[in-house]
Amino acid sequence: MTTAPWRDPALPAAVRVDDLLSRMTLEEKTAQLYGVWVGAATDGDGVAPLQSEMTADYDWDELITHGLGQLTRSYGTAPVDPALGAQALARAQRRIAEAGRFGIPAVAHEECLAGFTAWGATAYPVPLAWGASFDPPLVEEMARAIGGDLRTAGVHQGLAPVLDVVRDPRWGRVEETIGEDPYLVGTVGAAYVRGLESAGIVATLKHFAGYASSAGARNLAPVRAGIREFADVTLPPFELALREGGARSVMAAYTDTDGIPASADPSLLTELLREDWGFTGTVVADYFGIGFLETLHRVAGSPAEAAHAALAAGIDVELPTLKCYGKPLLEAVRAGAVPESLVDRAARRVLLQKCELGLLDEDWDPEPAAVIDLDSAANRALARRLAEESVVLLDNPDGVLPLPPDTRVAVVGPRAADALAMLGCYSFPSHVLAHHPDVPMGVEIPTVLQALRAELPDAKVTFAQGCDTSDPDLSGIEEAVARTAEADVCVAVLGDRAGLFGRGTSGEGCDVTDLRLPGVQGDLLDALVATGVPVVLVLLTGRPYALGRWHGRLAAVVQAFFPGEEGGPAVAGVLSGRVNPSGRLPVSVPRLPGGQPWTYLQPPLGLAGEVSNLDPTPLYPFGHGRSYTTFAWESESAGAEIGTDGSYDVTVTVRNTGERAGAEVVQLYLHDPVASVTRPDVRLIGYRRLELDPGGAARVVFRFHADLSAFTDRSGARVVEPGALELRLGASSAEVRHTARLRLAGPVRVLGTDRRLLCETEVSAAD
Amino acid sequence: MTTAPWRDPALPAAVRVDDLLSRMTLEEKTAQLYGVWVGAATDGDGVAPLQSEMTADYDWDELITHGLGQLTRSYGTAPVDPALGAQALARAQRRIAEAGRFGIPAVAHEECLAGFTAWGATAYPVPLAWGASFDPPLVEEMARAIGGDLRTAGVHQGLAPVLDVVRDPRWGRVEETIGEDPYLVGTVGAAYVRGLESAGIVATLKHFAGYASSAGARNLAPVRAGIREFADVTLPPFELALREGGARSVMAAYTDTDGIPASADPSLLTELLREDWGFTGTVVADYFGIGFLETLHRVAGSPAEAAHAALAAGIDVELPTLKCYGKPLLEAVRAGAVPESLVDRAARRVLLQKCELGLLDEDWDPEPAAVIDLDSAANRALARRLAEESVVLLDNPDGVLPLPPDTRVAVVGPRAADALAMLGCYSFPSHVLAHHPDVPMGVEIPTVLQALRAELPDAKVTFAQGCDTSDPDLSGIEEAVARTAEADVCVAVLGDRAGLFGRGTSGEGCDVTDLRLPGVQGDLLDALVATGVPVVLVLLTGRPYALGRWHGRLAAVVQAFFPGEEGGPAVAGVLSGRVNPSGRLPVSVPRLPGGQPWTYLQPPLGLAGEVSNLDPTPLYPFGHGRSYTTFAWESESAGAEIGTDGSYDVTVTVRNTGERAGAEVVQLYLHDPVASVTRPDVRLIGYRRLELDPGGAARVVFRFHADLSAFTDRSGARVVEPGALELRLGASSAEVRHTARLRLAGPVRVLGTDRRLLCETEVSAAD
Repeated sequence: MTTAPWRDPALPAAVRVDDLLSRMTLEEKTAQLYGVWVGAATDGDGVAPLQSEMTADYDWDELITHGLGQLTRSYGTAPVDPALGAQALARAQRRIAEAGRFGIPAVAHEECLAGFTAWGATAYPVPLAWGASFDPPLVEEMARAIGGDLRTAGVHQGLAPVLDVVRDPRWGRVEETIGEDPYLVGTVGAAYVRGLESAGIVATLKHFAGYASSAGARNLAPVRAGIREFADVTLPPFELALREGGARSVMAAYTDTDGIPASADPSLLTELLREDWGFTGTVVADYFGIGFLETLHRVAGSPAEAAHAALAAGIDVELPTLKCYGKPLLEAVRAGAVPESLVDRAARRVLLQKCELGLLDEDWDPEPAAVIDLDSAANRALARRLAEESVVLLDNPDGVLPLPPDTRVAVVGPRAADALAMLGCYSFPSHVLAHHPDVPMGVEIPTVLQALRAELPDAKVTFAQGCDTSDPDLSGIEEAVARTAEADVCVAVLGDRAGLFGRGTSGEGCDVTDLRLPGVQGDLLDALVATGVPVVLVLLTGRPYALGRWHGRLAAVVQAFFPGEEGGPAVAGVLSGRVNPSGRLPVSVPRLPGGQPWTYLQPPLGLAGEVSNLDPTPLYPFGHGRSYTTFAWESESAGAEIGTDGSYDVTVTVRNTGERAGAEVVQLYLHDPVASVTRPDVRLIGYRRLELDPGGAARVVFRFHADLSAFTDRSGARVVEPGALELRLGASSAEVRHTARLRLAGPVRVLGTDRRLLCETEVSAAD
Repeated sequence: MTTAPWRDPALPAAVRVDDLLSRMTLEEKTAQLYGVWVGAATDGDGVAPLQSEMTADYDWDELITHGLGQLTRSYGTAPVDPALGAQALARAQRRIAEAGRFGIPAVAHEECLAGFTAWGATAYPVPLAWGASFDPPLVEEMARAIGGDLRTAGVHQGLAPVLDVVRDPRWGRVEETIGEDPYLVGTVGAAYVRGLESAGIVATLKHFAGYASSAGARNLAPVRAGIREFADVTLPPFELALREGGARSVMAAYTDTDGIPASADPSLLTELLREDWGFTGTVVADYFGIGFLETLHRVAGSPAEAAHAALAAGIDVELPTLKCYGKPLLEAVRAGAVPESLVDRAARRVLLQKCELGLLDEDWDPEPAAVIDLDSAANRALARRLAEESVVLLDNPDGVLPLPPDTRVAVVGPRAADALAMLGCYSFPSHVLAHHPDVPMGVEIPTVLQALRAELPDAKVTFAQGCDTSDPDLSGIEEAVARTAEADVCVAVLGDRAGLFGRGTSGEGCDVTDLRLPGVQGDLLDALVATGVPVVLVLLTGRPYALGRWHGRLAAVVQAFFPGEEGGPAVAGVLSGRVNPSGRLPVSVPRLPGGQPWTYLQPPLGLAGEVSNLDPTPLYPFGHGRSYTTFAWESESAGAEIGTDGSYDVTVTVRNTGERAGAEVVQLYLHDPVASVTRPDVRLIGYRRLELDPGGAARVVFRFHADLSAFTDRSGARVVEPGALELRLGASSAEVRHTARLRLAGPVRVLGTDRRLLCETEVSAAD
């Protein structure tokens, strides 16, 4: 018996897949276009929005005789021992392969936003903390470790990273984003993708596109945005992560923008993504998102019409259900309502990816490793490094930090002694264990209180919770005040509790109406400050909160964004001085709780205070963060005239002028004084994190290319316009250290998709 | 000596103006393109944003030798006796005419949003109250009266109406709008325009376009909107007011939408407005708006470039300054940087309007009437009728209202005894007298307290203010509670104090971060409710406020939107029962203070509660309002199949089934179950206010035409799509009384600018 061409690993994937497709029935082809979620609840109280949309109207044994596209969340649905889970997944895969005529298993996908969402797996810092680190190489290393663990466990595809750019910090999913600047999101996101893909895992860019801009910051609300905002703010991170990261999958967003649902938008999912950007991977639906075209968008009159719209737009795989791509699609194709060529197009993409993953090979073997350790010492070390780099010292005016070793410290606040304070909503404990209160956490997570006691063995550390994150009860404040009054310093650890769909103060479906500290934590802080004892505010949050009320009244402010399982030691290390803080804000910290949406990407009109009683100036600007050491910046780059296709090197030497090793983040901002459309006053176009010993210096060269000044003009074209530009070297978006003045000469240049996206940067030692 | 052709009233205006232009120097032509504001402060503490932008760098006597386009606010700048003001204006006009070679006076413009902004002129209800009346004919009558008074006083152009559609109720200028529905705004706005123009006054549609949608509701902040929202929500009121109202001027908005400033947008101000819509009048700048192209938008590098951009876009007149269209424009044209043809184009439009206004005629005579009464009895009667029709009874579950004649009433609250509580920010007292605290109000304005005492002479009425609108002092609440405890019922009169730029809780530049009742008025209301005495809440506000906190705990809720000088008697009349309330909400009243922006024009995605912890469902929906009588609705219009160019008559008979005369507002909403883009769940497409005696009935026929189902599709075309439609007859947007189900058959129709905008409506008596 001859091996069929599609089984022959020596043949090109396209040849193999075409051969396979020619052998498949329509039913077998459509079966490759959906995933199912075995074991998930359908009562709506689950881990995805409107989980009640999931149809359970199928017979598993019969279903898999046609094959199966994807298997949903074998690990992230309920707590299972990873080794047993891997065995179970392998068994399921064998059954699927054995049931079908071709022996093809499913693609197993899993969430992995801030680590593999499995019981006992390392909980890394959340993406907003990656943004704060300004350290793409370290994020890449973390993602490689995540990818390795996923692969060990038999998972093929990870549903990360989130590349949504924050447009309204009230949104619950801000913690899942990398920040409010497209360049930061894109560069850090691309690093994550490189790491995951380098481990053989299919990275999934989401949510494509617009999701973060929902009106009123309500999850899934319609997006009001025009083509320029979409092109210049929303899309660039995806372009970067595809081109610089090599992601092989993209997830269509739930939302609609200006009336057009992303999941039914061929101009987005096919014309832009595939034809312009050259993407060849798979586009998957967000959970239940195809059905939403009928129920929440009403651009389809039935599941079959929804399937048609999504398939035509370019969604290849329905997740995690077969509500539309199951029987409705099958029948619509048979009835001639949907061209079979659309099914073939999607099935080809799915099978090409399976081929790449080795799932068509005869020697495919799902047998997992005997020992599965998802929280290795190496993982922990990575989680620690990233946590330490991501802690932002917002203010320390009188040098109260670091704390002396023998001080009396009152640690207070609802986030001080709760391990969950370290975790975002997509961590396994927050995401799944909320439904399994009796199951232990699965990983060790020191709290700030525990870690601080370990860091300062000679200090007298007391503790009082003071209040809850949500409960309005004020009765605990008295004790917290008493502990504070007896201490030399108070460390108030406040912030969010992550959860899903109203079960937290931050997380998916946990949107807020304003940026007040959650619950009565503001009252607690008022009471602590009133004691007169210096108060160090430590925030463990998923979004920025308004701190203007306490400005000038706090001894120090430390901001951490859910820093993961090693976040307690990282924060405590900053407090003790073992760690010199080096994080920088990936989101602005506002003065006032209201007046949202606002981010730093504003033209002058969005910065003006005189025309409204609401002054939007943030308390701490994007890019801000302090250190225990000092840095001197020197640059002689005065500027020049270059062509609209030219480039210019901005050079800066940064020296650590203090007594301690530390890291400075050199940021390069573009200011465009006059353009044909309104432009942000400044926007980030380059950055570099520098670790410097005392007295040490480094020279950074930013190779600015005119392409980096491009924007979308009135006609919708991406152009470089001649005229003046300022390249501003800054320690934050508001703290300019040096300005180089350029003049671009020559014609307006219209750029294509081959335009430069990155500012090349070189670092060398300096004297 | 022969009369020059331009002086000959027998010749067509175009011939006259071309002749005149051919005789004018460049300096004389540009002088027609600006207005100046004599006597206004330049210190920024004025009545317009960034008044410091105004240049005073000119010599008046020299300036007017070239002529002058416009004179700014002779009445609305400082308190002057109208008769003396008219004399002064006439003198100024004579000087201008005498100084120039051609003897042409200026166009005198004035604000007239809710009445002529002059000392002693009638203060009518604000536009949001017009919206609540759902009574365009009455608004037209009011505008005719306003126009007559303007004309008597020598004013030619009124800077009203505001046709911005509310997109975020936190915005300070919501009180100046007609509501959150484009059809309501357009139909009521067109009525206002007809009235003003019928008196010979040039009506000015503003702010064209997008201004109300500023991000974060901060005044002037950039607008994030796409082309479909712009075309289907923002623009229709302007189209209606031009076509159905005949407005002869349009004011360009301050804002930018998706990066393009309206004041520099030829596609808006020329292509759409003039080429597509056929507008032939003048486009004027918003105050200082041309200069903002340089300073706040940065699409121009100098005043000359700003002038060029604005002139090329289609702004004919700079107001109220010559910062850009003065010397900078003159020099730029002389230098060849700006084509003189652009100056000619604008000057021709200005002079054509002056010709129409009789200002080119030899017998032009500015001598005003000897007696000027700007607050006649007829005006007062109109102001009273409109106020009475605009009061909305939101709730009256137990029939506590009307109050019995001999009851004991505790009237409390900071709005009960303040005449300013009746007025919006563009009323003369709020707008100008704020700077002249010693000048009396100029018109008589009974407060709610005074009016209620007059309405209920046998009642025992006590009063306590309780608190201020803004001041956080709580000490007055005790007395208010004491008065309430001694009474049978408490009437709590709360709300806004209108002002400009931070001087009020509502008004231009008085934006809010959330929709809590201003100041500590919520605390006062809590304390009153806690007494157990029935509390009737009366709101005198410029925007809706969140009332969910008190839902089910108030005896009745009466909402008035700054009801003008006769608002006190109107509200008291509703409380006493003399007036049967008939207003309907032109804006939704939310449950929660946060979660904005939100209006009722939401696709299902914007209504869904399950996907976010924030439920946007309003407490009282758009169109809601109760009566002291009851109405029965009957309709047998079941629906039909019609063509995509067809029409269908929906007929409803409404009968007053109660004991009192009253008015019902029959509302027709369109529900489009499936469309090619997302559509609002419902939107208003017709309405009719019916006054019915007890037992009386009326039959209303709404002639629905398929054009009314049109929307902007993915390509940007305005289309009627085949498919199902529901025509819902409702007593509000959420209270459906009858549904007719249509099926539109035939091809997709692409509509032009001749499409039907109005739902023809016929009313006849019924048995």
